[in-house]
Amino acid sequence: MSSPRAGEVQALIFDTYGTVVDWRTTVLEALRALGRARGLALDWEVFLAQWGETRGILDRINRDELPWMTMENVHRMALETTLQRYGLAGLTEQEIEQLVRARWRLHPWPDSVAGLTRLKQRYIISPLSNASFIGMVRLAKFAGLPWDCIITAENARRYKPHPDSYGTAVSLLGLRPEQVMLVAAHNYDLRAAQGHGHHTAFVPRPTEYGPSQKTDLAPEGEWTVVARDFLDLATRLGA
Amino acid sequence: MSSPRAGEVQALIFDTYGTVVDWRTTVLEALRALGRARGLALDWEVFLAQWGETRGILDRINRDELPWMTMENVHRMALETTLQRYGLAGLTEQEIEQLVRARWRLHPWPDSVAGLTRLKQRYIISPLSNASFIGMVRLAKFAGLPWDCIITAENARRYKPHPDSYGTAVSLLGLRPEQVMLVAAHNYDLRAAQGHGHHTAFVPRPTEYGPSQKTDLAPEGEWTVVARDFLDLATRLGA
Repeated sequence: MSSPRAGEVQALIFDTYGTVVDWRTTVLEALRALGRARGLALDWEVFLAQWGETRGILDRINRDELPWMTMENVHRMALETTLQRYGLAGLTEQEIEQLVRARWRLHPWPDSVAGLTRLKQRYIISPLSNASFIGMVRLAKFAGLPWDCIITAENARRYKPHPDSYGTAVSLLGLRPEQVMLVAAHNYDLRAAQGHGHHTAFVPRPTEYGPSQKTDLAPEGEWTVVARDFLDLATRLGA
Repeated sequence: MSSPRAGEVQALIFDTYGTVVDWRTTVLEALRALGRARGLALDWEVFLAQWGETRGILDRINRDELPWMTMENVHRMALETTLQRYGLAGLTEQEIEQLVRARWRLHPWPDSVAGLTRLKQRYIISPLSNASFIGMVRLAKFAGLPWDCIITAENARRYKPHPDSYGTAVSLLGLRPEQVMLVAAHNYDLRAAQGHGHHTAFVPRPTEYGPSQKTDLAPEGEWTVVARDFLDLATRLGA
């Protein structure tokens, strides 16, 4: 069941937060733990949704309106804004770090490790995440992700979907764009990758944003492959 | 037997050619295979020693007298010079590629994989090689090196011992210099790393350059750790 159009692919690069691992459950639990410790009765799901609005910061970094900063510092900046909006202040450095570093200890979706392990037999597999480099290293150790290497936006100092983030991955891998396939649960990411000449694989993660998720439930482009999960992806890619 | 001075170390970065893998045996065999195919009776050990004189090219790249190029292209440039010196010409692109890419299929020293596997339980382990990024990825897949990530001179576009090569590794790992230990069979590399505030581990590889090797047989500095091999290193570092 190998996809003929993907025959030239040598490397698979993966969006990671949401596509490979479930960030929401663990980060929500970290927020709720803070709430219990502090005696705060908030709707943490709403808080998390607001904290997650980092796109504006990333775009300003990509436009050089803000200096380069790692995703940990992006999350710190967005957290500060969200806390202010709620009239909360005075979190300790340790509390802030615990919230930010919750993303170093996320759990893979049930099919992720088994699927990656199969795909690794035939392809080079790497994240291409907006995470920091060390964030992806720590996550891989925690979650047992069997990457061949780590590539993130930090290697380009530009956040997806900036062309340099994909371009740096291709350059480091010494490949041509069409020898690289982006695997993602997010159509915006695949759209950018396709625009740079990469193959694309959509794997829906319909509960990434919780039980009432409305976005990215279905493919919104002509992606090379659409797969149910990473095991299905491995089968479709002949691995 | 944990070394008290190394207690703060979180990541071990490894010189790779010579320190982790035996490059000479495989590259020499590739040259001899070419000789047989071409009917050339040369002393390939001498040829290899001359081909290996790449330091001048690396230094010129570090001084911006040559544009950045990956180690594969450095080896191509040095190969061309060596072939000319021998009055040899007309190698096909395939023959040249086979010689250059022999370094993607090197064998680890007998203790390397077992030692790295133990060290990985306690530390982040990464190469810090002058190899290309893809060269290290391919080598890791071939030799089964269980790296947590790949970092090479290509990430800095400066070759060791340029400060940026070590500095980029520390920056990507999000650590302080003293939280990183360089492991190498080469005193020059350890000297540079120590100068940048890193811990250092010397592991001699007395046959890297063949049976009559005269250099790097013993430590030539006050290194944090001196170990017989990677298993001894793991024991000394409490892994």
